[in-house]
Amino acid sequence: MDQSFLPDIQLVIQANFFTASSPQEILFYPQALLCIGKNGKIIRIIHHDDALYDSYRALFKQFTLIQYPEHHYLLPGFVDLHLHAPQWPQLGKALDLPLADWLQQHTFPLEKKYASVEFARPIYQDMVTTLLANGTTTVLYFSSIHTPASLELARICLQKGQRALIGKVSMDNPEQCPEDYIETDTQQALQEVRDFIEAVRQLPQNETQRVQPVITPRFIPSCSDTMLQGLGEIAQDTDCHVQTHCSESDWAHQYGLDRYGKTDTATLNDFGLLSRKTILAHSNKITQEDFSLIKQQQAGIAHCPLSNFYFANCVFPLRRALEQQLHIGLGTDVAGGHSPSLFNACQHAITASKALQDGVDGGIEAGQRGTQEAAISYKEAFWLASAGGGIALDLAIGQIREDFYFDVMVIDTQHPHSNLKIWPDDRPEDILQKIIYNTERQNIIEVWVEGQKVV
Amino acid sequence: MDQSFLPDIQLVIQANFFTASSPQEILFYPQALLCIGKNGKIIRIIHHDDALYDSYRALFKQFTLIQYPEHHYLLPGFVDLHLHAPQWPQLGKALDLPLADWLQQHTFPLEKKYASVEFARPIYQDMVTTLLANGTTTVLYFSSIHTPASLELARICLQKGQRALIGKVSMDNPEQCPEDYIETDTQQALQEVRDFIEAVRQLPQNETQRVQPVITPRFIPSCSDTMLQGLGEIAQDTDCHVQTHCSESDWAHQYGLDRYGKTDTATLNDFGLLSRKTILAHSNKITQEDFSLIKQQQAGIAHCPLSNFYFANCVFPLRRALEQQLHIGLGTDVAGGHSPSLFNACQHAITASKALQDGVDGGIEAGQRGTQEAAISYKEAFWLASAGGGIALDLAIGQIREDFYFDVMVIDTQHPHSNLKIWPDDRPEDILQKIIYNTERQNIIEVWVEGQKVV
Repeated sequence: MDQSFLPDIQLVIQANFFTASSPQEILFYPQALLCIGKNGKIIRIIHHDDALYDSYRALFKQFTLIQYPEHHYLLPGFVDLHLHAPQWPQLGKALDLPLADWLQQHTFPLEKKYASVEFARPIYQDMVTTLLANGTTTVLYFSSIHTPASLELARICLQKGQRALIGKVSMDNPEQCPEDYIETDTQQALQEVRDFIEAVRQLPQNETQRVQPVITPRFIPSCSDTMLQGLGEIAQDTDCHVQTHCSESDWAHQYGLDRYGKTDTATLNDFGLLSRKTILAHSNKITQEDFSLIKQQQAGIAHCPLSNFYFANCVFPLRRALEQQLHIGLGTDVAGGHSPSLFNACQHAITASKALQDGVDGGIEAGQRGTQEAAISYKEAFWLASAGGGIALDLAIGQIREDFYFDVMVIDTQHPHSNLKIWPDDRPEDILQKIIYNTERQNIIEVWVEGQKVV
Repeated sequence: MDQSFLPDIQLVIQANFFTASSPQEILFYPQALLCIGKNGKIIRIIHHDDALYDSYRALFKQFTLIQYPEHHYLLPGFVDLHLHAPQWPQLGKALDLPLADWLQQHTFPLEKKYASVEFARPIYQDMVTTLLANGTTTVLYFSSIHTPASLELARICLQKGQRALIGKVSMDNPEQCPEDYIETDTQQALQEVRDFIEAVRQLPQNETQRVQPVITPRFIPSCSDTMLQGLGEIAQDTDCHVQTHCSESDWAHQYGLDRYGKTDTATLNDFGLLSRKTILAHSNKITQEDFSLIKQQQAGIAHCPLSNFYFANCVFPLRRALEQQLHIGLGTDVAGGHSPSLFNACQHAITASKALQDGVDGGIEAGQRGTQEAAISYKEAFWLASAGGGIALDLAIGQIREDFYFDVMVIDTQHPHSNLKIWPDDRPEDILQKIIYNTERQNIIEVWVEGQKVV
């Protein structure tokens, strides 16, 4: 009986858990013993059918042992790959407007206000608290163009215990940015990105780099060539993550083609902005050549199904991307998406994929209406929200397995005031499907990040 | 100052409320005085800007006066126009299967079990409780083929205070029904429908007919001509509501065309099953002639956007139906839809309409991809879930207005553990939009039906 790992144990947890080992395969383990290390990682899992289960369990009595009841299920904490932090007060608002009005009348005037850290602070505090409560343990954030407010967001994530990757937004193209919300001095803006990266890395309590800086050209139309070139160099120098919007809508996709004679993906690659550390938001209009390039560079895609319904003019070809084994996760795209919940994103990833498969216009012949085999199931949605997001970020998160961080949520399936209903003949896969479809915030009774309970 | 209605008052409520006066127009009234009559109806509304507001308020001190705080908002109770009661335990389960497997492996074997009232009772109790807690004050139910369990559902609705229209399902076509879940004697089955109607109308505590029986051919494929003919005669004799599925999917639509050489709508009309009292579920594949016939007969449509994504092969042409001023409301279609919440149905009605407008396949040219102007907004979704459903059923429900039943829900917009976030500069229309998009069950703190608090 191996006892070598005992000195590293911080805590032992006994619980049922689900985790995705591939887009098609979900693993279920009842009443496993999860040994949480002092480093915040799962250092050993003893399964219930292990011959030494009882012996280990007896041995673990020297540690704090938390035992969850049969109707509680651990899931990996969800990973939100695309969210605009300053748009938080806009959640669920003005989505009846066309995109241009939504941006000009609401989004840009709101983002501009984050010049004030005092304005930003209570909003970011509420946002981080809410996202954690929804089971989102890691977020890849767009903030605004403001360094102080972006640093404040980093501090808040550290205080509240959320794992975060935060990008101070870069945008300097006067043709496409509002007059009063733009970086007018490109060189200074680039220096600010370097300073921001250094400042985040040096933040107190950030020794494990739980919060990381991200290079963030808003999207190609809002950046000058100089800006894109400079950000590519910073990516090379600092080994930071990169995020941007890519071929989101007809307009944005065409803009890139008109300006560079190539797709957003190819342009980003040529500027040194496409690598294993890049996350492309949306990518709805990408070509087969883009797919190949993304695969070659091992970049990731943030699929945002809900906001796509509102603003993208089409559905991301998810099935095709999964078949090519790209790195893909889900984004809420708050506030282009109205829900802060990745359970909601899972549900919309499924409905979007069904719409793509079957088509939508009943006036068109059935055979001509949709594309072949585009639909995904709850299993693939669950994979995307957890493991897929973790792999896309190349971090040891999104799965409940040894050597991964203990970032998890605990689902109560017997909450008395709940739409989540488990009946006696439901098998574990039914239970997970029901969790994906009907979990509301109140079913998420605990959330842990890096071995610490944060909700 | 009119005091004539005072003797009829049961209770006075002071609250903010939203109500839809048309698909495009939402009315907001702050701190109105709602006089609830002994008949369960709103017998008088005094608005805050009424010159006599303060005088009336003083006068109402002789009654119980409930005053809701500023951050509470009354909405009309929602009307669910399509829900399969016996499928309740299947909520959120097995939706990864194709329709045929979903029906054969799960739905029919489950529905069959309602031969036992003891099996049905706890499920129906849980369902009615849950739906009320989600703000659904009226439901048009499909039950199973079993009279005793269907009557038990009626009793439970009466006990728990839900307004309900309940259809014992009719299905006798051996070619399309499972061997072990079918009515083998059509004449006896027709007599059972007559008996069921009479029994519901005579139920104790049903003096106001808050629970009504509904004639319910499952859908054309599952009924013989004799059955359809007989049900049409019963509709004529009893003046009951009628409900059925209509042109839901490619297969069902084609089945009707092959069997009768005409659409489901035309067939139902010829059997005497299309009238002001009919609700057609889905109707995704209906033609312009069908639209005209539905309009002429003043029948209603239950739009079920979520289950359509899973099983209907296309999106209901909602905008076109609204333009022709048809009677339309929303259905959750539990368990083909995984959510019991009509807020969720509102959200999916919007995303479905956006998908229809823009199309889904990014590989198709933008101009060729979608249909013109199909998108609806939160206002139209709210109308559909409330007023639209009430009008479709021709009942005095779904709006907060004089002479309508006091069927309402109370939304708390400051629940401490909520995804619904109101900020200081949100106007009333922003607040309603946020309510539609992010209300979860816990935000619904009270529900009233016919002047009685039921949650």
